[in-house]
Amino acid sequence: MTWRENVDPKPMTARKKIILDCDPGHDDAVALLLAHGNPDIELLAVTTVVGNQTLEKVTRNALSVATIAGITGVPFAAGCDRPLVRTIETAPSIHGDSGMDGPEQPESTIELDPRHAVDLIIETVMAHEPGTVTLVPTAGLTNIAMAARKEPRIVERVKEVVLMGGGYYVGNWSAVAEFNIIIDPEAAHIVFNEKWPVVMVGLDLTHQALATDEVVDRIASIGTKPAKFVLELMEFFKKTYKDAQGFDFPPVHDPCAVAYVIDPTVMTTRKVPVDIELQGKLTLGMTVADFRAPAPEDCHTSVAVDLDHKKFWDLVTDAIVRIGEPTLDADAEATTAAETAGVLAGEAK
Amino acid sequence: MTWRENVDPKPMTARKKIILDCDPGHDDAVALLLAHGNPDIELLAVTTVVGNQTLEKVTRNALSVATIAGITGVPFAAGCDRPLVRTIETAPSIHGDSGMDGPEQPESTIELDPRHAVDLIIETVMAHEPGTVTLVPTAGLTNIAMAARKEPRIVERVKEVVLMGGGYYVGNWSAVAEFNIIIDPEAAHIVFNEKWPVVMVGLDLTHQALATDEVVDRIASIGTKPAKFVLELMEFFKKTYKDAQGFDFPPVHDPCAVAYVIDPTVMTTRKVPVDIELQGKLTLGMTVADFRAPAPEDCHTSVAVDLDHKKFWDLVTDAIVRIGEPTLDADAEATTAAETAGVLAGEAK
Amino acid sequence: MTWRENVDPKPMTARKKIILDCDPGHDDAVALLLAHGNPDIELLAVTTVVGNQTLEKVTRNALSVATIAGITGVPFAAGCDRPLVRTIETAPSIHGDSGMDGPEQPESTIELDPRHAVDLIIETVMAHEPGTVTLVPTAGLTNIAMAARKEPRIVERVKEVVLMGGGYYVGNWSAVAEFNIIIDPEAAHIVFNEKWPVVMVGLDLTHQALATDEVVDRIASIGTKPAKFVLELMEFFKKTYKDAQGFDFPPVHDPCAVAYVIDPTVMTTRKVPVDIELQGKLTLGMTVADFRAPAPEDCHTSVAVDLDHKKFWDLVTDAIVRIGEPTLDADAEATTAAETAGVLAGEAK
Amino acid sequence: MTWRENVDPKPMTARKKIILDCDPGHDDAVALLLAHGNPDIELLAVTTVVGNQTLEKVTRNALSVATIAGITGVPFAAGCDRPLVRTIETAPSIHGDSGMDGPEQPESTIELDPRHAVDLIIETVMAHEPGTVTLVPTAGLTNIAMAARKEPRIVERVKEVVLMGGGYYVGNWSAVAEFNIIIDPEAAHIVFNEKWPVVMVGLDLTHQALATDEVVDRIASIGTKPAKFVLELMEFFKKTYKDAQGFDFPPVHDPCAVAYVIDPTVMTTRKVPVDIELQGKLTLGMTVADFRAPAPEDCHTSVAVDLDHKKFWDLVTDAIVRIGEPTLDADAEATTAAETAGVLAGEAK
Repeated sequence: MTWRENVDPKPMTARKKIILDCDPGHDDAVALLLAHGNPDIELLAVTTVVGNQTLEKVTRNALSVATIAGITGVPFAAGCDRPLVRTIETAPSIHGDSGMDGPEQPESTIELDPRHAVDLIIETVMAHEPGTVTLVPTAGLTNIAMAARKEPRIVERVKEVVLMGGGYYVGNWSAVAEFNIIIDPEAAHIVFNEKWPVVMVGLDLTHQALATDEVVDRIASIGTKPAKFVLELMEFFKKTYKDAQGFDFPPVHDPCAVAYVIDPTVMTTRKVPVDIELQGKLTLGMTVADFRAPAPEDCHTSVAVDLDHKKFWDLVTDAIVRIGEPTLDADAEATTAAETAGVLAGEAK
Repeated sequence: MTWRENVDPKPMTARKKIILDCDPGHDDAVALLLAHGNPDIELLAVTTVVGNQTLEKVTRNALSVATIAGITGVPFAAGCDRPLVRTIETAPSIHGDSGMDGPEQPESTIELDPRHAVDLIIETVMAHEPGTVTLVPTAGLTNIAMAARKEPRIVERVKEVVLMGGGYYVGNWSAVAEFNIIIDPEAAHIVFNEKWPVVMVGLDLTHQALATDEVVDRIASIGTKPAKFVLELMEFFKKTYKDAQGFDFPPVHDPCAVAYVIDPTVMTTRKVPVDIELQGKLTLGMTVADFRAPAPEDCHTSVAVDLDHKKFWDLVTDAIVRIGEPTLDADAEATTAAETAGVLAGEAK
Repeated sequence: MTWRENVDPKPMTARKKIILDCDPGHDDAVALLLAHGNPDIELLAVTTVVGNQTLEKVTRNALSVATIAGITGVPFAAGCDRPLVRTIETAPSIHGDSGMDGPEQPESTIELDPRHAVDLIIETVMAHEPGTVTLVPTAGLTNIAMAARKEPRIVERVKEVVLMGGGYYVGNWSAVAEFNIIIDPEAAHIVFNEKWPVVMVGLDLTHQALATDEVVDRIASIGTKPAKFVLELMEFFKKTYKDAQGFDFPPVHDPCAVAYVIDPTVMTTRKVPVDIELQGKLTLGMTVADFRAPAPEDCHTSVAVDLDHKKFWDLVTDAIVRIGEPTLDADAEATTAAETAGVLAGEAK
Repeated sequence: MTWRENVDPKPMTARKKIILDCDPGHDDAVALLLAHGNPDIELLAVTTVVGNQTLEKVTRNALSVATIAGITGVPFAAGCDRPLVRTIETAPSIHGDSGMDGPEQPESTIELDPRHAVDLIIETVMAHEPGTVTLVPTAGLTNIAMAARKEPRIVERVKEVVLMGGGYYVGNWSAVAEFNIIIDPEAAHIVFNEKWPVVMVGLDLTHQALATDEVVDRIASIGTKPAKFVLELMEFFKKTYKDAQGFDFPPVHDPCAVAYVIDPTVMTTRKVPVDIELQGKLTLGMTVADFRAPAPEDCHTSVAVDLDHKKFWDLVTDAIVRIGEPTLDADAEATTAAETAGVLAGEAK
């Protein structure tokens, strides 16, 4: 019996299986904590890809978060170290030199899976029942695009792709393009044009997911090491988002995609055809949504519109609470589920 | 003494001088009526350009409207018969084969000015005091662009360019581009990149300028021939906008630009850098507005945001009322101002 | 002892190791025969990719050729079934519905390697000494690009990439682009921009590799089944090249790349920077060579210029002669080298 | 009776009427001298446009050349001061700060025509019989494009457009684009897509028009002031072409276009469809020629291929000889034709 069953009577089979493809990244870290701590999510694999920082850095960051959160039994694999066609562009103005500046990072005790992220994604999808695995990319789409091209059968096997990226009205890395899309627009073009369901959780939505003072206070009150880690992430994130983009509170993008998988009512969405601009001079990497008419029957893309701010942050804080105070030593695998569950039960409010 | 002085005590010098560059077009016709009938506008010239239909057709339509509205003493000149670089694209789905289908059109008794529209624009701007002439393009920007390239001095001499076209969020001829811009994006690029003040009255605004049943009823109640003409225009426009774009009521775009010149409080605007996408595959002709930060000090472009629907239609109906029942015969030029003023005085509410 | 050692005293270690990535394809078939029959080549693997026809068809064709030529002990693997970003475009006007119309194709007795072509390429390159394996793509570059992105270390490990594709002055699928490049320009961009040595054997060169009547007569005189197979390929190829592109004799592109690996003196080459145009309207997929100045020191691309027509066809006919009359049954592996060598010795003129 | 009739019995009516649209420019200067001095050319007008230097500078240079060459009775008009869409790019690396560095320039005594170049071109074409006026642009095509858009009727009225620009294989301002085209590619697109006959005298041809030592010696031997002026132009041109592009002798582009009008046998040409690339990243402004098949019947573009070097320079030196030693004073207009003819007769070999 795992701790999840202990704290949550929901049967394993009802949990939503996801692969989180990320580039931690402050908000990726929160997404990972949410995916790990929420009882409705079964985290099948975590894959990394160049984005907020180099592949090496974001992979190390992912392992750090796993260590802090006590994630065990989940394969972590590194993927592509550069975009398909474009040269590498990272985001130190937002995420610092390490890609996750702010908190001190523990030396990770977790070993990377030897497989390439692309293969791990393919094998994981093919190993599960069709329609059961959701891909949750919160980074550039290089790994996902490569997987779809290498093994086209994953496209109809995946349940849906719920991605953080893009924006139908809002841009951040250019007037009309968002970072995750513009750093590898060709990969985004591949992902948006495959016929799997794609839910675009873009800036229109995530700019509502602000870590306000009240949110930060709630997290502070949890008092665990993971909570403290999130606080320090948010502190750094607040400063860079203020300096670089003029925000009063930082938008915490990536967990929004995980939250949608947990509970789609956390946001409204709208069905609309979305495609990626590949040759615009001003619009490269724009996620072009066509709102001119009702979406056609076979429209497989939708965009996130309005966030339930309270429900979203409830999910995040609840997950942090549930994670509790994980054992951080090298023998993490040996920690019994019961022990973990005990800690959690004690921490939960 | 002209009829204007009769019905409106405002001194001539306070009237706003405009050149209307148009492609009638149902809404261009209403723009022309508004410009003619409103006492605060001095219509210096009307120029035509290929757009809603061929140059020949829109020019004939402009003269028809002039005849119906009794516009005399204003030079009308034809301009470019095709866009700078792209091939001709017209809009019969919206405006019909004639470009102004619906009402019967009188044979115009007005002669075209022999000058090319580009030269008429240049000469008119150069003949007036700097900072006094507003260009109001409600069509593709070919003429205006050509004028700016042929006589660069007009750029600092023009007061501002208040144009109907584009849209910062909304498109009609593609997902993100509007007809007037996409039919000659290079011309639009020229106009938006010159340093004159540009007010973009785009689809975001004009889709609020709906000719609702109530609006149509108000116009019907005027009872003059010009009012009847507008009614028939709106009847056709309503049908094509329903069929082609699914609107319940047609958006009457072009008079919004004229209305802004008359009274800027008819709408809110926002300063924001706008540029034209020239090489996008999905975004060609998009008016890319960069809302990411406060507009820089030297930002010379602004976009229309919210329309005061009542104030707008008040202006339009008032103008139609003031136009009254013009004499339509071939000797229009000979009609004395006093006579005209008398007719108008009788019709005005 | 293999037949190769029998007929050619050259030690195995001196032979040039290649991976042939192809889309048979009439000229791919000849390239495969040349690679197999020439004693200086060690064919490490054959991989297939969508191009002249669908992946399924070109893979079946590759196995057919292997059967006809008696190729054993070489892994054949299928790769990508579509280009990275663009939709599939095949060349039935040149290669027919099967991709290799003309000769009757035997049911192949050879089984595909279970690995994906991308992985076979990566594993083969990584399994050999650095600087020993030459990639010879004669199709769209999807597989090669995917391999370079999935395992970036192959780039410095590969000896060189000798590819059939492009043209510095000559195009065939557009005015200035060649089929193999334009069907997946993003993949070509990836391959040409990695820092491995790239020899572009383009249309400028391959349009010299005409299968003239004299060439065809020489092949006819060999009299073996593989020779007859080549004859029937050339017969079909001649007709389609005449009908589709007006050639009197068909240019046999792909074996030129193999011939260069065997003996670089079969053609002249010139060092010149080459890059791929990705957003041109008229020039998409052009291999843009910059001849304006001497190539810089670190220039890693070169282009083939002039072909030694006789030397080239000597290599091809010699290879066909050496292949002789292979056993076509399912027990091909059991054919002793000595037997094969005997047949060859008897057939050689 | 003019001097032309004196030195050349050819009737005026047989002379080829040209409008030279230029941006002097060292080679433009030679083109102007050739057009003026050759008895088969009737120079109807000279127009200037931004290019090698700003409009102001190239216009001053044109007038200087006119003064030096004693050109009278020909209207000179300034045109566009910037390209249609792109920002200004000049060529000081080739032509120096003045646009015509090297020789000392006399203060010009000639007054500009008050008309805009675009209007002068239009009026001149419309004032002559259809099919009699050849446009000879040796600069960016802004003026010509503007004229074609402002008065579309000139397109079928012009005899042909013989332009210096582009290159089907050769580029200079990028790997595959030439300066005159790339500085205003939209204008070039307009000119090449109108249905008038276009002869593209591009770099493929003009890089053969080298001012070798022998050529320079021949010009030196003429001994007149205009000849000395040409010598000094060539001296500077040689140095910059050596430094900037590595040429041993400078290619004297622009007079090649004039030479073709004088005598088409001075070069070979080939009919081929040519279009202008407007959105390539590497190929912007390329003159894309499609040599894949015989040119279609209605092909209206052709490209210059091989130059008869001797015949070309014979024409140039002959023209300089005929120009002789013009009177340079401010009363140039008053110089009688007979006087001029006398000077010329004395100088002619």
